Amino acid sequence: MSDTARTIRVTVWNENVHEQREEAVRARYPEGIHGAVAAGIEEHLKGQVTIRTATLDEPEHGLTEEVLADTDVLTWWGHAAHGKVSDEVVDRVQQHVLSGMGLVVLHSGHFSKIFRRLLGTTCSLRWRGADDRELVWTLKPNHPVAQGVPSPIIIPEQEMYGEVFDIPDPDELVFVSSFTGGEVFRSGCTFYRGNGRIFYFSPGDQAYPVYHHPDVRRVIANAVGYVAPTGERDLPILRRSAAGWYEESAQEQA
Amino acid sequence: MSDTARTIRVTVWNENVHEQREEAVRARYPEGIHGAVAAGIEEHLKGQVTIRTATLDEPEHGLTEEVLADTDVLTWWGHAAHGKVSDEVVDRVQQHVLSGMGLVVLHSGHFSKIFRRLLGTTCSLRWRGADDRELVWTLKPNHPVAQGVPSPIIIPEQEMYGEVFDIPDPDELVFVSSFTGGEVFRSGCTFYRGNGRIFYFSPGDQAYPVYHHPDVRRVIANAVGYVAPTGERDLPILRRSAAGWYEESAQEQA
Amino acid sequence: MSDTARTIRVTVWNENVHEQREEAVRARYPEGIHGAVAAGIEEHLKGQVTIRTATLDEPEHGLTEEVLADTDVLTWWGHAAHGKVSDEVVDRVQQHVLSGMGLVVLHSGHFSKIFRRLLGTTCSLRWRGADDRELVWTLKPNHPVAQGVPSPIIIPEQEMYGEVFDIPDPDELVFVSSFTGGEVFRSGCTFYRGNGRIFYFSPGDQAYPVYHHPDVRRVIANAVGYVAPTGERDLPILRRSAAGWYEESAQEQA
Amino acid sequence: MSDTARTIRVTVWNENVHEQREEAVRARYPEGIHGAVAAGIEEHLKGQVTIRTATLDEPEHGLTEEVLADTDVLTWWGHAAHGKVSDEVVDRVQQHVLSGMGLVVLHSGHFSKIFRRLLGTTCSLRWRGADDRELVWTLKPNHPVAQGVPSPIIIPEQEMYGEVFDIPDPDELVFVSSFTGGEVFRSGCTFYRGNGRIFYFSPGDQAYPVYHHPDVRRVIANAVGYVAPTGERDLPILRRSAAGWYEESAQEQA
Repeated sequence: MSDTARTIRVTVWNENVHEQREEAVRARYPEGIHGAVAAGIEEHLKGQVTIRTATLDEPEHGLTEEVLADTDVLTWWGHAAHGKVSDEVVDRVQQHVLSGMGLVVLHSGHFSKIFRRLLGTTCSLRWRGADDRELVWTLKPNHPVAQGVPSPIIIPEQEMYGEVFDIPDPDELVFVSSFTGGEVFRSGCTFYRGNGRIFYFSPGDQAYPVYHHPDVRRVIANAVGYVAPTGERDLPILRRSAAGWYEESAQEQA
Repeated sequence: MSDTARTIRVTVWNENVHEQREEAVRARYPEGIHGAVAAGIEEHLKGQVTIRTATLDEPEHGLTEEVLADTDVLTWWGHAAHGKVSDEVVDRVQQHVLSGMGLVVLHSGHFSKIFRRLLGTTCSLRWRGADDRELVWTLKPNHPVAQGVPSPIIIPEQEMYGEVFDIPDPDELVFVSSFTGGEVFRSGCTFYRGNGRIFYFSPGDQAYPVYHHPDVRRVIANAVGYVAPTGERDLPILRRSAAGWYEESAQEQA
Repeated sequence: MSDTARTIRVTVWNENVHEQREEAVRARYPEGIHGAVAAGIEEHLKGQVTIRTATLDEPEHGLTEEVLADTDVLTWWGHAAHGKVSDEVVDRVQQHVLSGMGLVVLHSGHFSKIFRRLLGTTCSLRWRGADDRELVWTLKPNHPVAQGVPSPIIIPEQEMYGEVFDIPDPDELVFVSSFTGGEVFRSGCTFYRGNGRIFYFSPGDQAYPVYHHPDVRRVIANAVGYVAPTGERDLPILRRSAAGWYEESAQEQA
Repeated sequence: MSDTARTIRVTVWNENVHEQREEAVRARYPEGIHGAVAAGIEEHLKGQVTIRTATLDEPEHGLTEEVLADTDVLTWWGHAAHGKVSDEVVDRVQQHVLSGMGLVVLHSGHFSKIFRRLLGTTCSLRWRGADDRELVWTLKPNHPVAQGVPSPIIIPEQEMYGEVFDIPDPDELVFVSSFTGGEVFRSGCTFYRGNGRIFYFSPGDQAYPVYHHPDVRRVIANAVGYVAPTGERDLPILRRSAAGWYEESAQEQA
C-alpha cells in the first residue's frame, strides 16, 4: 500500500566450490552460480533491486554483521562445503532472518546449516543424478511467486529430488515437481519464522544449466520480492516492547 | 513489485436493519454501520480506494453481477437478517471470492451465509453482551494487517465473543482477544479459498461504537489492502487452462 | 488410551449408477463399487468394524437420521449423479460430520455436494482418462493412513487427476501422486471440520479395477480407522456448554 | 487399530536446580518437579506406562543413548540452567524426536536448547510473576489432549506468559490461556517434526503448585498418550529405504 517503490537490497550467496574445482561447472556458469542467480534477479527486477554477491572463501564468508544489516533478502546456494560454513555466521544469519530479513534457499541448500537450523529437521530427501526431466507444477495460481511462469515449468535435464523431504509442513506449498522416474517433490515452499520469510525452491544444480532457464530465473526473482521485509527489522518480541498498555503492567523477559 | 499504484475498488455491505429499527443504533451510527466502516477505510486509504456501499434492501441486495465484477474487496456486516440474504446472491459472492475478490467479514458476520458457505462449519461461538473490555493482541507483529496499531488494542466496551469458535484452522492467526470475563477469542484470522483471500475481524457491534475506534478502523483498512487481489480474476482451474504443455496432453474438465 | 477395543460402525455409500448402466463396470465390480470398498475395509479390519452399504436410489439415499446416528465413519463414492443427491441429505451429513462422524471421500467424490459443502471451494481439478500409471508417494511415513503400504503405491492403469486441485490447504498432506503424463496431484489429504475428520483419497475409478488393488484397500481401511471419532458426538459449541465456570458468567448463543 | 495395549515408556526430565537451591520450591515439590510430573502421569495412565526420571546432574544428564532408545515419550522441564545442557545431549534428543520419540515440553522449557533447536525460532515470550489467575481454554474440544478437563481450566495462581510467543505456527492449537492482566497465550500447541510429535504446554512454574493441579496433570498425561509413537522408530528418509520400486531406480543420499 506504499506509494513509493522501495529498493530491495539483495545478497546472493554461493559457496563457489564446484566452480573452482570443475571445468564443466565453470563452463556452465562462467560467472559462478552466484553470477547466474544475480543476473536472473537483475533481469526481472531491474531498478527495483541492488545486488551484491558473497562467497564462502571471503572473510566471514562475506556475511559480516554490516553486510547482513544492509541486506533485505539473502539467497543461498551451497552443496559441497556445508560443513565449512562457520557456526558463528549461521547464528548471525538466523538472527537476521528471525528479525525480518528474507531468505531464498536454492536446491542443495536444503542441507545447509542455516536451513536445517531454521527448520529443525534433517531436511533430507532422495536424489538421483540421471538427466531427469523435471516438471514444476503450480498449486497456487494466484501466489506472487508463481506469477509469469507456465504450469508446468519444463526443465529438460535436471537432478531428481524426491520425497520424503523431511521438513515441517510448509506454511504455503506453491510448487510440486515430478520427474522422469515418476518421483514427486515439494519444490516450492514458504516458511515463516519469527519476522522473516523463507522460500525454498529446489530446481537448480551445478551439473545442469538450470539457472539459465528463464522460468526458473523468474521464480527466483518473484521469491526475492515475496520474502522482502515490509516493516522494520527486529525480533518479534522486541518489536512490540513499546506498546503502552503492556509496559504498564508487565516486565519484559531479557 | 508493480511500479504503478492500483486503486482498490471497495464495496462495503451492511444489512442495515438495526439502524432502521433502533434509535440508539441510529444515534451511534448516523450514516449506518456501512457509513462508519467506509469512513474508516477512506481515512486510511485516501486516494488508494474507491468505495461504494450496498445494503440488504436494495435489489439483489446491491450485489449484482456488475457490482461484484467491479469490486476488488467486499466487506460484510450482518446480524439480524442473515436468513434474508438470497441464496442466489450468496452463490454469486462465493464465485467471486473463489475467483480472487477479497472478502473482509466483520463481527456478527461470522454467522452470515457467505462466511459459513466458504468455511463449511457452523461458525458458532459464545457471546455475552455485558460491556466487557476487549483487548486485541497481535500474534504476528510483521503481518500487514497488524501494522500501525498497538498490541493490545484496547476497546473499552464491547460484546464478548468466546471460544470455541467453530471454524477450520485459519491460514494465519493474526489477533487473539481477551475479555473482562477472562474469555479468549481468535479475533483476526485469514482464510485462503480458491484465488481469494478472506479476513475475519471480530471487534464491532451495533450496540457499541467500535467502528469509530481509530485502531479498529486501521485494522479494517489494512485488511482491505491485504485481501485485495494482485492478479487476474478467475477460478483457479481456469486460470491455467491456457498453459501450453498441459493443453497438448490433456482435456479440461467441464 | 482406552483399554477396550471399540467397534467402528461403517456406512459405505455409493451412487451406484455406472454399475446399472454399463456392462463393463458391472463386470469389473459385480458387487458394485460399494461392494468392493466394503470388502476392502472388511479384509483389513475384520472384527473391528461393522459395515453396511447405502445407495442413491434408496429412500433418503439410505442416509436417514437413524442410519447416520448409527454410523461412525461414512465413505462416499459418486460421479455421474452428484446433482441428484438431495440438499436435505447433504445438510444432514454435514451436521453429522461437524458433530464428529468421520468421512472418507473417494476419487470423483471430490465433486460431490457434501465435499464441496464442507470445503467451501469448487474442488475442481484436471483429469484425463488415458490409462496412466499412477504412483502414490507417501509424504508422512509415520501417518496412520500410510501404514502397511509401499511408497510409491503403483497403480498400473488409472484416470489422471492433476493440479490445480481447488481445495483449502489440507490439514495434513499424506500422499502426492504422479502420472504417466508427468502430472502431480495431492491424492491423500485430511481436513478437520468441527469435531469431524475428513480424508480424501483420489485413487479409484469406475473404469479401472482400482478398488481391487490391495494397497488401495489398505489405505481406505487405514483411513476408516483414522477418521473414526474418539469422543462423544456433538457440535463443538455444544460439547462444552456444561463447563461450570463459563455457565456462571455467560449465556450461550442459540 | 492395534488389538493389544502397548506400554508407553516415559522419561521425565527435570533440571532439578530450583529444588536444590530454594527451600520454598522444595517444600512445594518435595519429590522435585519431576516427581510431581511423574506422579501426575502415573495417576492417569496407571498400568499403561512405565516411568523413569532423569536430571541435569546425572552423567549425560541421564539421557544416554540407551535411555533414549528405551524411551517412547520424554517430558522436559528446565528454567535456570538451560545453558548447562550439553550440545551433545541436545543433538541426541533431537535425533530421537525426529526418529519418532514423543516430546512434551513444559512451561519454561520453551527456552530450552532442545525446543529452540526443533523449532528454529527464539521461542521468546512475555512474562510476569505476579500471582495471575490463568484460564486455559480449549479450542479443539475433540482433541485427545483436551479430554477430561473443563474449559476453562482454572489455575488460581500462576506466572503470566503472554504473546508474542515467537514460535512457528503450531500444527494444532489446542489451548489458549488468558491471565488476570488480560494477556493471552497459546498455551497448548502440537508440532510435528520428522517422525516425532511435540506437545508444548505452558502451565507450570517452580513458584506455584501447578503440577499438583488435577486438570494440569490430566493434560500432561493426555499429552504423553498423544505424542507416543505408533510405528517404528527411524528418521523419515530411512523408514522408506526398502520400498522396492524406488530402490530399483534411484540411489539414496548418504
